[in-house]
Amino acid sequence: MTSVEQALTIIRRGVDEILVEEDLVKKLESGKRLRVKAGFDPTAPDLHLGHTVLINKLKQFQDLGHEVLFLIGDFTGMIGDPTGKSATRPPLTEEQVAKNAESYKEQVFKILDPQKTTVMFNSEWMGKMSASDMVKLAGQFTVARMLERDDFSKRFKGEQSIAIHEFLYPLVQGYDSVAMEADVELGGTDQKFNLLMGRMLQKNAGQEPQTIITMPILEGLDGVQKMSKSLGNYIGVADSPGEMYTKILSMPDTLIWRYFELLSFRPMAEVDAFKVEVESGKNPQEVKQLLARELIERFHDAEAAEGAHKSAGNKMNLGEIPDDVPEVEIELAGQPEIWINEILKRAGLVVSGKAAKDALGRGVVFADGQKISTDFKMVSGSSCVIQSGKKKIARVVVR
Amino acid sequence: MTSVEQALTIIRRGVDEILVEEDLVKKLESGKRLRVKAGFDPTAPDLHLGHTVLINKLKQFQDLGHEVLFLIGDFTGMIGDPTGKSATRPPLTEEQVAKNAESYKEQVFKILDPQKTTVMFNSEWMGKMSASDMVKLAGQFTVARMLERDDFSKRFKGEQSIAIHEFLYPLVQGYDSVAMEADVELGGTDQKFNLLMGRMLQKNAGQEPQTIITMPILEGLDGVQKMSKSLGNYIGVADSPGEMYTKILSMPDTLIWRYFELLSFRPMAEVDAFKVEVESGKNPQEVKQLLARELIERFHDAEAAEGAHKSAGNKMNLGEIPDDVPEVEIELAGQPEIWINEILKRAGLVVSGKAAKDALGRGVVFADGQKISTDFKMVSGSSCVIQSGKKKIARVVVR
Repeated sequence: MTSVEQALTIIRRGVDEILVEEDLVKKLESGKRLRVKAGFDPTAPDLHLGHTVLINKLKQFQDLGHEVLFLIGDFTGMIGDPTGKSATRPPLTEEQVAKNAESYKEQVFKILDPQKTTVMFNSEWMGKMSASDMVKLAGQFTVARMLERDDFSKRFKGEQSIAIHEFLYPLVQGYDSVAMEADVELGGTDQKFNLLMGRMLQKNAGQEPQTIITMPILEGLDGVQKMSKSLGNYIGVADSPGEMYTKILSMPDTLIWRYFELLSFRPMAEVDAFKVEVESGKNPQEVKQLLARELIERFHDAEAAEGAHKSAGNKMNLGEIPDDVPEVEIELAGQPEIWINEILKRAGLVVSGKAAKDALGRGVVFADGQKISTDFKMVSGSSCVIQSGKKKIARVVVR
Repeated sequence: MTSVEQALTIIRRGVDEILVEEDLVKKLESGKRLRVKAGFDPTAPDLHLGHTVLINKLKQFQDLGHEVLFLIGDFTGMIGDPTGKSATRPPLTEEQVAKNAESYKEQVFKILDPQKTTVMFNSEWMGKMSASDMVKLAGQFTVARMLERDDFSKRFKGEQSIAIHEFLYPLVQGYDSVAMEADVELGGTDQKFNLLMGRMLQKNAGQEPQTIITMPILEGLDGVQKMSKSLGNYIGVADSPGEMYTKILSMPDTLIWRYFELLSFRPMAEVDAFKVEVESGKNPQEVKQLLARELIERFHDAEAAEGAHKSAGNKMNLGEIPDDVPEVEIELAGQPEIWINEILKRAGLVVSGKAAKDALGRGVVFADGQKISTDFKMVSGSSCVIQSGKKKIARVVVR
């Protein structure tokens, strides 16, 4: 494989669409250090793993030698809601924008390389733009085509009001690409319309249009709806190591490979090998542990990653319950009860059925501080702190 | 009648709509010198009488003591067509705008009192407006309501493209009223949507909304379609006295009272009296002559008004044809021919049937330089220079 082919393999991983891939190949072949744009809201960031799907892709571009332009769209944020209808969107001050930018950096520099990242603010050029230039910008697109955008189309048909300034925002977002001379822009699949706007405005401005790459929306821990704070199905970037560990170990097995593809930096070859092992009988909890360890190390550190699954760690005595026990959920899927050897396996407290049998045989398995043996079981709806040896403990919730 | 009632009578003359009249009454009662706005295109003006309907109403406000704000919308003119589709709308330079403004003044100050007129340019405030302020302005109106505007609605339904900047122009026009603190705005009936926009934006800005007054669109000399250069049914402000005279004397009788109401400054009581006289048998050409005289005096001078209908005037000898003979058209309405006594009356060369008979009896009537008598007639499609005495002459075209 040439280095361009290798780069493409990395870039293609997990993406929804690359438009136009041929042009991207040419850009990669040129050897130029590409300017890779991604835009973010200027409101206070509180990122979850869903947001990091995009940031991970930016990181991959950085590792390939390219420059990330991390754009904070503060121009519109400082305007707030001009209709005055939304009390929840007060205009942001410059101080708030600066503070939020710091918070972004703190969170995304756990993934991105600060040396290869330029943080930009679109108020830099939009703040200097005149009303006359805005009129000229607006003249480059039609009302009918703007109404084709999914959300506008739905609202228009549903007779929900669209304020005219909302038609200007995609144009501003597109113009940012012109001002930034972006070679590539990344966004969620829901951003495709706006990303295409950038291409069009760049063409009109005589620039080579950016390649657009859309990333899929990550499913939350329920495996169905998109990851979101309000749905409660998220893993926050700021979650404690214990929380991260618990959430990942409790997630449905069906999500494992999706999360590996989009959230892990392990080569896909390794991930594929794990998949083969699990299909051949390996406990899926073990690979979840590998993912948990990688993510905890990324957002905390190696020590936290090591310690997360044992909470208070080596200091813990048998039968002693520490203050912060990670929680693991087990879904029974219709069965009324679950036996301890199965509980140990599914909660990630042992690596195999054999290890479970060993631990029980050695008398190092405790439930709520009481030693238990092979006849212990839990029923649906109950919860219990289960310990296996001095290093592994979890609050197990059976659903 | 109180002075406010008198003022209202003058203001109501010929208008299409006053919205809200109650508020206008209060404004008039306040004794304040009202700021009366009217907006004009910044392109080279070449006004015809249709345009002066609005200017006449401004003049009436001036005569009532109010101030006219004559707005030249140069902000949009200097942008040109941002879609780049219309080669016919190149952006105007500041010099062109200034030149066109001079041309406007030259034409409208034949009606308006320069002392009570402030010529304004909206580039003064729009040129200073930022893109951010434009976004805020756009936030004050919805897409759905903008699409209710007649022309937008038709184009949208007809799938003709509307560029997004076109949605900004009515907002700019409305914002002008805010910047100008207009108390009253005048416009054609086709401008109602934009005039209402001014009211809304003034309300949002905490100002008392302007009263809007719409003026009807003047019919052209055909009495059917609106007066327009391209239809050729117009009387230009720059037309020569002879052209004005000819066009007015040739217009259909049905237009007389409409033109008096909208173009004359004679009190309506006088106009109504003329109407009674004509209904009682007076030659309508006589009142057309009065109108012609008033208009020629307005756009040229008293001498031109006096001389127009006799062209070279007193110096003309009987049977002699001067170089610039005014033209008068006579419509036969289906009849094959017309006799000289009728020709003299309808061409305005005599004031009555009796005067025609007298002139023919005295032998002072000439056709193309040849003396004629009562047996002379013209057929449809012919033309002839008819002279009646030393003072009246016209090229009569029979249609």
